[in-house]
Amino acid sequence: MPAARKRPAKARAKTPPPPPRRSPCPVACALDLFGDRWTLLVIRDLMLGRSRFKDFTASPESIPTNILSDRLERLLESGIISQIPAADGTKRLAYTLTEKGASLKPILKSIRDWGLTWEPGTQVMLSNPANH
Amino acid sequence: MPAARKRPAKARAKTPPPPPRRSPCPVACALDLFGDRWTLLVIRDLMLGRSRFKDFTASPESIPTNILSDRLERLLESGIISQIPAADGTKRLAYTLTEKGASLKPILKSIRDWGLTWEPGTQVMLSNPANH
Repeated sequence: MPAARKRPAKARAKTPPPPPRRSPCPVACALDLFGDRWTLLVIRDLMLGRSRFKDFTASPESIPTNILSDRLERLLESGIISQIPAADGTKRLAYTLTEKGASLKPILKSIRDWGLTWEPGTQVMLSNPANH
Repeated sequence: MPAARKRPAKARAKTPPPPPRRSPCPVACALDLFGDRWTLLVIRDLMLGRSRFKDFTASPESIPTNILSDRLERLLESGIISQIPAADGTKRLAYTLTEKGASLKPILKSIRDWGLTWEPGTQVMLSNPANH
């Protein structure tokens, strides 16, 4: 009897397997996981307390839903996020950072600091809803 | 009389202008510049003392030359690198990090540290030729 699937086959089928590592360099391997324009913005949102698919799509960069689905699936597969029940008591699912994902905080912080220093007109515009 | 071009028109024509900013978020703006699988590897190589086109192509990830040309052009346009005469005394050009580019070091370091911690089998394999 086959083992139970953790996620629906349909969702998994959308995302092709990751390409093989380009080298053993830790920077290259890390970029294989989050080296794109969107993934670290989803991580940023999770660090700010956002957890639901609709929360991520509401961020000012307006991530396309097909890209968001792909990135969430990849982040689940690489163990950076996990699925949890939504806080509203429904059967919907939400996402949370694992320890591996939370450990990305120094990377986000250094990117934020660099952007604030070197890209004119940038500002920390997103607040953590948990702080309100 | 038109101002002298800094770089050949042909090379510039290959790289389309960057898309407009997605938001004023410093993380999003920074990822607009280097949020891809390759750019930070070129920055890594520059930090390790590599400076020539052929040096970058010799790195273990084997960056395709068309991608390398594009990324170097974008990095020049965003002021992260600049062109300098090659150290061999020929008329060839090399690349160096500007102050803006050198300021990416904390980002590279945090990515390296995360990769070493969370991606099994990674290792710091590239050494700085200046240290030999």
